[in-house]
Amino acid sequence: MLKPFDQALAEALRQRLPDLPLKPAEARYLEEPRGKYYGQPTFVAAPRSAEMVADVVRFANDATFGLQPFGGGTGLVGGQVNPQGPTPLILSLENMRAVRGVHPSERVLIAEAGATIAEIQAAAEEIKMLFPLSYGSQASAQIGAGLSVNSGGLNVLRYGMARDLCLGIEAVLPDGSIHHGLRRLRKDNTGYDLRNLLIGAEGTLGVITAAALKLAPRPARVATAILAVTSPAAALELLQRLFDQAGEVVSAFELLSGTGLRFLADTHPDTRQPFSSPPEWSVLVEIGTAASTDPDETLETLFAAAIADNLVTDGLIAQSGQQRDEMWAVREMIPVANRAIKPVASHDISLPLSEISEFMEIAGPAILEITPFRINAFGHLGDGNLHYNVFPPEGRNADDFADIAPEITRMVHDLVAEKGGSFSAEHGIGRMKVGELQRYGDPAKLGVMRKIKAALDPLGIMNPGAVLPCAND
Amino acid sequence: MLKPFDQALAEALRQRLPDLPLKPAEARYLEEPRGKYYGQPTFVAAPRSAEMVADVVRFANDATFGLQPFGGGTGLVGGQVNPQGPTPLILSLENMRAVRGVHPSERVLIAEAGATIAEIQAAAEEIKMLFPLSYGSQASAQIGAGLSVNSGGLNVLRYGMARDLCLGIEAVLPDGSIHHGLRRLRKDNTGYDLRNLLIGAEGTLGVITAAALKLAPRPARVATAILAVTSPAAALELLQRLFDQAGEVVSAFELLSGTGLRFLADTHPDTRQPFSSPPEWSVLVEIGTAASTDPDETLETLFAAAIADNLVTDGLIAQSGQQRDEMWAVREMIPVANRAIKPVASHDISLPLSEISEFMEIAGPAILEITPFRINAFGHLGDGNLHYNVFPPEGRNADDFADIAPEITRMVHDLVAEKGGSFSAEHGIGRMKVGELQRYGDPAKLGVMRKIKAALDPLGIMNPGAVLPCAND
Repeated sequence: MLKPFDQALAEALRQRLPDLPLKPAEARYLEEPRGKYYGQPTFVAAPRSAEMVADVVRFANDATFGLQPFGGGTGLVGGQVNPQGPTPLILSLENMRAVRGVHPSERVLIAEAGATIAEIQAAAEEIKMLFPLSYGSQASAQIGAGLSVNSGGLNVLRYGMARDLCLGIEAVLPDGSIHHGLRRLRKDNTGYDLRNLLIGAEGTLGVITAAALKLAPRPARVATAILAVTSPAAALELLQRLFDQAGEVVSAFELLSGTGLRFLADTHPDTRQPFSSPPEWSVLVEIGTAASTDPDETLETLFAAAIADNLVTDGLIAQSGQQRDEMWAVREMIPVANRAIKPVASHDISLPLSEISEFMEIAGPAILEITPFRINAFGHLGDGNLHYNVFPPEGRNADDFADIAPEITRMVHDLVAEKGGSFSAEHGIGRMKVGELQRYGDPAKLGVMRKIKAALDPLGIMNPGAVLPCAND
Repeated sequence: MLKPFDQALAEALRQRLPDLPLKPAEARYLEEPRGKYYGQPTFVAAPRSAEMVADVVRFANDATFGLQPFGGGTGLVGGQVNPQGPTPLILSLENMRAVRGVHPSERVLIAEAGATIAEIQAAAEEIKMLFPLSYGSQASAQIGAGLSVNSGGLNVLRYGMARDLCLGIEAVLPDGSIHHGLRRLRKDNTGYDLRNLLIGAEGTLGVITAAALKLAPRPARVATAILAVTSPAAALELLQRLFDQAGEVVSAFELLSGTGLRFLADTHPDTRQPFSSPPEWSVLVEIGTAASTDPDETLETLFAAAIADNLVTDGLIAQSGQQRDEMWAVREMIPVANRAIKPVASHDISLPLSEISEFMEIAGPAILEITPFRINAFGHLGDGNLHYNVFPPEGRNADDFADIAPEITRMVHDLVAEKGGSFSAEHGIGRMKVGELQRYGDPAKLGVMRKIKAALDPLGIMNPGAVLPCAND
């Protein structure tokens, strides 16, 4: 059983590691974006090196208290906030944010865990390359945390998840040893894949302190469009045609719903929208090509054929960087509008592409049968990943439906499971979905997870209560 | 301590699982391509389903004997052959070779572990798609084994290793439980990455019985060239320009050495070579593009500029499918020629791209200082992966230098380690490199590997002696 990290342990830690930045935790360390979890008052340690992280981890083992890794605080499933159980010490990577190396000819950049996604994008930009990881919270989200939760975002279709952009890591393991794995190699078959085990483990098996990251060539030419489609099925058909015609250059294929566009118009009337009247379904498409290809032409050809075949009814191809930015602003403002309206229940689901239409056809009516909710299903359609969010009827408040929210989530997640999908496509498990993982997870995999957690972190000091239930729960 | 699998255990297994195909092991199960290991006489079980594999694994736990997974027998590091210690039962996946499902709109194919790489390529071809994994032994190599060793090959530059082509697996774990993870999802953040843990574990943590595999669009147009370059550094500069000009469409960038081409001329004079006199260094380049791009033009432009800048002295762009096949035949015959000449020492190394030239400049002279060996450094330069093989001087025999081989390997691997490289880029650890992994592996990672192995396979029944030393060694 872990001990709470208290004033006495803080004093002991100061004695043992006088150089370690240690301070009482301000509110920002105890809150999370959706306001569902509040951390217990505690301290924040912010080591300046992997060695210092290791010192803290060893002390946590010796004194038997929990560590709450913290990297920007933007997670959406409560993985970074510990609301109950023995109070942990927060271990923030904010003082480790250097770019340690840039290797242009290898298309590799080495960054410390505390560097934000935006900072890494900027460092890549300086050498005229692209760090493709991109999502709404990138100005605050740190790369170490981004890897720990295997974050996704807007460019997964072409470049993959955070996992796919990482060649090597440096990490402090639960026993305080340091894994020196910052390799700049595309091929390295030397033993078990510790990198991928720590990526996605949400800080429960160790703390990533630095990473070797893949950069991509910047596409010489980019074309962006928003097209009104006749149905989600039509959107998927369009995606198929795009793959067939343009190969792997499709970097984004995002679904927008009429509900989402109306929410945006209501809450942010200044945001310029592409259509005077929001279509029920539309897609934001982006392709990026080499200089020798005309991506606008590809989109125009696609557009014309899709109109002829009644897949698309209307559309707009960006004619300038400004128009492109406006299109992306619409996409990026939709979660902001959602938060202003406030959902009854949110779901970060993924499905096999061929199951999406049927899922939508079953889930929508089933939910509307309960109450005439408003459904905003949007997001990374090209990845099979939808943010399937249910909102109260017009004029009503989400709080009025708090009782019914678990029933909606059960219905959605049951249907997702039935269709071979995932109840957590990109946000992870955190604390919010620990129960869902126990319910829907493969039993053999859960068995392995428990064995690995017990073998690597026998005292359970690393992010206790996240991903897996605490051993004593 | 494991018991040897003997006649009595074979009888007991027949009693317990009368439907399990079980036979004495023919020679082909006990040999490996380089003739370095010979397995002990034993039996082969060839289950027909994951459930049957699980039955065998449970029996192995109950009766405490080792299992030797076997999937085509093409591995180059002895991972599939057990020459010493208690005799294991060979567990072959040869009776599980069905393609369970093809999902064209998702670009996914589900195959059982025993399907060969070539069979999966053919199944993808049938729906006009590409399964990009490709290597010399693809006609025999099975996908389950290919994933277990995370095989690489000729298209890694563009499409990644076996690991990168796998969305989900079904696997039997060391306790006999079945992991049902055949998901067709691009995004699924639900717990620890068991898939990637089993991929590359070389059968020591479980047996992969089926996999959901990513397919890629077939490039509409392909251009292939062999260019004589002035040095390995010039080859790397050429690669850089190719990335800058053509983006991610480069699918192969293979280095050929004069030594390799001369070996080929000597041993296979009928193989048509691109140059009348073998240049000291050349590269085989391939790019595949969408229909709207002319890949020949890209290569021609590159070629012309590279000649002007003295990176390239001569070259040939394939003008027909036949010429393209001839170019690839040269590349594919080089390992065959090597085997005919017989190396003193072979090395499957990878290096950060920017370290390759210096490595070659140091390693070559250091080796030649010992004896005027012939060095054939060739392979997947674009991935930083070289097969750096050392051959006896003309007229001498490799066996004459058996004593000196370990010294050469030590020198090469020490230098690779110093440059941040890997002593096993794509072949894995098997039995041949267990000692090298202990020597060069990150100690913290080795600690995790031992803990995971002990936690998941406490009796050590899965591929004993591969990757990690046996617990009692």
